This record gives sequence, structure tokens and C-alpha cells, in this order.
Amino acid sequence: MPDLEPLLLDDLRGSLIRQEETIIFALIERAQFKLNPIVYQPGGCAPPGFPGSFCEYLLYETEKVHARVRRYTSPDEHPFCRDLPAPVLPLLAFPPRIRPTAINLNDRLKAHYVEHLLPGICAPGDDQNYGSSAVCDVACLQALSKRIHYGKFIAEAKFQQDRAGYAALIRARDRTALLARLTDAEVEANLLKRVAVKAAAYGQEIGADARREAYKIAPARVAAIYEEFIIPLTKDVEVLYLLERLERP
Amino acid sequence: MPDLEPLLLDDLRGSLIRQEETIIFALIERAQFKLNPIVYQPGGCAPPGFPGSFCEYLLYETEKVHARVRRYTSPDEHPFCRDLPAPVLPLLAFPPRIRPTAINLNDRLKAHYVEHLLPGICAPGDDQNYGSSAVCDVACLQALSKRIHYGKFIAEAKFQQDRAGYAALIRARDRTALLARLTDAEVEANLLKRVAVKAAAYGQEIGADARREAYKIAPARVAAIYEEFIIPLTKDVEVLYLLERLERP
Repeated sequence: MPDLEPLLLDDLRGSLIRQEETIIFALIERAQFKLNPIVYQPGGCAPPGFPGSFCEYLLYETEKVHARVRRYTSPDEHPFCRDLPAPVLPLLAFPPRIRPTAINLNDRLKAHYVEHLLPGICAPGDDQNYGSSAVCDVACLQALSKRIHYGKFIAEAKFQQDRAGYAALIRARDRTALLARLTDAEVEANLLKRVAVKAAAYGQEIGADARREAYKIAPARVAAIYEEFIIPLTKDVEVLYLLERLERP
Repeated sequence: MPDLEPLLLDDLRGSLIRQEETIIFALIERAQFKLNPIVYQPGGCAPPGFPGSFCEYLLYETEKVHARVRRYTSPDEHPFCRDLPAPVLPLLAFPPRIRPTAINLNDRLKAHYVEHLLPGICAPGDDQNYGSSAVCDVACLQALSKRIHYGKFIAEAKFQQDRAGYAALIRARDRTALLARLTDAEVEANLLKRVAVKAAAYGQEIGADARREAYKIAPARVAAIYEEFIIPLTKDVEVLYLLERLERP
């Protein structure tokens, strides 16, 4: 296979930072509706005959549309569903920036989103806005999936910075040491500070008289979502990518 | 037909104000990509055989999915496309709050959006993010359509406040006087001030070090979109609704 283009962390930073807005906007949009648990129950309010939940139905139907316009041929997009149709558009040639890999943590992402993330940002109860809630869920899940799988690009850039160091840990299959070497505590602390500032700016209620009021989602909650969920899952992608990295030299 | 539930402007205000966030978030999301004119050209980068643009293709495919989950059976949702499939879910009974009407200004909305609104918020040029741009377009168009057609509810509430006054103007088919009577200059001035405050809060760039920087879309531009486009089109919906209002007593 062709050599990879050199990949620098600085080249990825702009996209990672801009994705924070997309994620925070999507979470704020979802939080305007109640939890609506029936949306996530298999059979709950899904069309008759569909084996999953209404949220999974809308996700599958949306992914079928996006698959036809070749969304999942881009190396930074990952579907949640299997059995998607082939693109109806000619394929684009992407310059190879990472090694080909089948890593996809969307099942874990979706389970965590439904079981832990949503109850932390939505008021409990049922407001009957099932369709609106599920449309927001699709946007949230797509934004989170893109961010988490960006770990492949981050891992490739870090590997290229320190080939010998990573290769030794990869050959030793030392996941703990890989995780430690991938972790930059200062970058993470800055990120958590930044997303809290963003959540405060983007999530403030501005009332009818343009006076600032409460937050739609507490900024500390958004930071916690990054700290407890987005960052660890991104690093899991990074470790999995690195463990495969030497198999395709 | 059954009597309408009494409709008060105060009951609509919360939704109208919350829709501002959805619209501003959607515009900011679209503005991260260049204009990408090929997305709006018939045939440009649409699948072979589709008669419209790529944006129209994605809009149509998305609306087919949403139609099947009965989005357009809600009186505050209006499709852009014709020939949509029937819902696969049982229909919900909505308590009648407005008179049934076929008013739908989405063709005008879409034309203005593509020709005037987008060039005002996107950098010129082509960055090849066609799919991402069109996904954002669908979110923008759906949010704008909901806001504009909320004019039906606003007009009904205003009619109920002043039946005799509006009925005389409706019988005289006096569109100019209807428009004048519907207009509340103070409410509009407050709205423009509020959306500029919101656009400044939600559209501020927050850099890697959490320092506040420039705006993603100038707050004055967002206020101008409301003043020159969203408010006038909403009022057109209101006038059209009132002109039909006496036909179904």
C-alpha cells in the first residue's frame, strides 16, 4: 500500500477544537426535550416489525441516506449500523493519512449515550417529542462518533513522532504503558477548561429581554462528559489503532 | 369541524424564542464550510438521474425518512418536497389550534436561502465538504421552515384577540392594513436585539487557550437575516393565513 502522508498533531488540532462546538450545540439541542425513555426501548415507539428502538430506526434510516451519498467512505466517518447500501455517487480518492482499520466503537458509544449521557442532560419524563428527540440523538451520536474515532488520526500522528518508543510498547502488547504514553495531562486539562468555557458561552439562557439567565446544560456537566466519556473512548480508539499499527508496515 | 382551542401569544412566545437557538446553531454549523456552489447546482454533484441539486437530493431523501415517522402530520412541520411516503407509525391526534390550511412557503424560503442567505454567512469557494454542507443545509432549512410557518399560530392568536378588527380587513382583502395590524414594532425591535445578543454569545470563537476571539458569523448579520428575511416571510404566512381565516368559520 502507498506510504502515508506525514501527519502532525497541529494539523488535527483545528478540527478537534471545532468539533467541540458541534458536540456542544447538539447536546444543547437534545436537552430541550425530556428524556422520553420510550424512544430508546426496543419496540417502544418504533415502526411495527423493526427489531430495535425508535432511535435506532431513525439512525438506521438516516445512515442509509448518508451511505448512499458516500459519507462512510471518508476515513473520519463511521456508521452505527450494518447492512448499509452502496454509494450512488462516484467514490472520492482520499490521500491515505492513517492505516486502514476496521476499528469502530459505535456500539459502546451508543450504549453509553443512552444509558448515562442522556439522563445527565435531559429532564426526566415524557413530553411526546419523540421524533424531535431522535433527530437530535442522530446529530449527537454522529458528532460524538466522529470525535472519538479521530483517535485514529491522533494515534497515527503520535506514532510518527516517536516510532521507536511506540513500537516497543506495541510489540510488548502493553496497553497500560501505551495509554500512559498517549496521555498528555496538560493538553487534557486545557481541553476540559476550554469546553467548560464553551458550554457556558453557548448554553446560557438568554431571555425575552436579552438578559442572561441559567445554563441549558451545566458547563461542569459538559466537561464531565468529556472527562469521563469522550476522552477515555478516544484513547481506547488510539490504543486499538496502535496495537494494529505494526501489522501493516 | 371542532372549535379551536383558545390560543394565546404568550403560549407561543417560549417556542419562538427557543427556535432562535436552533436557527443560530444551525447557521453557525453551516458557516464552518465554504459556500460550495456545486452543491446547489442542478446536476452539479447530485446522483445521476436526479433532476435537482445535491442539496435537494439530500433534502428529499431526509424528508422521506421523516415523513415515514410522521413528521409532517404535525401542524407545525412543513415539507419542502412533494410525493413523500405515508407514515409507517400510527397518527397522533393533535388538538386543533389553527384552521387547516395548505399554505407552504418553503419554495420561496429555499430559493432565498441558497441565493442570499448562504453567500452572506459562508466564505466563498469550494472546500469539497459537500455532504457535510448539505447535512447542515437540511438542518437550517428545517429550522427556518418551522419558524416561518409558526406565523399560522401567531396569526390565529392575534385574530382571536381582535376578531372584529381583523374580520373587516380580511373581508376588504386589505393586505397592507393586515400587515400593519400584525406588526408590533416594539416586539420586533426586542427580537432583533435579542438575536444579536444570542449570536454574539453562541458564535464567538473560543481558541485553544479558551480566549475569546472573533465571531463565526457577525451578530449584525444574524439580526439582518431576521429583519430582512425571517420576519417578513413569517408575516407573509400570517397574512395568507388570515385571508383564508373566514372561509372556515
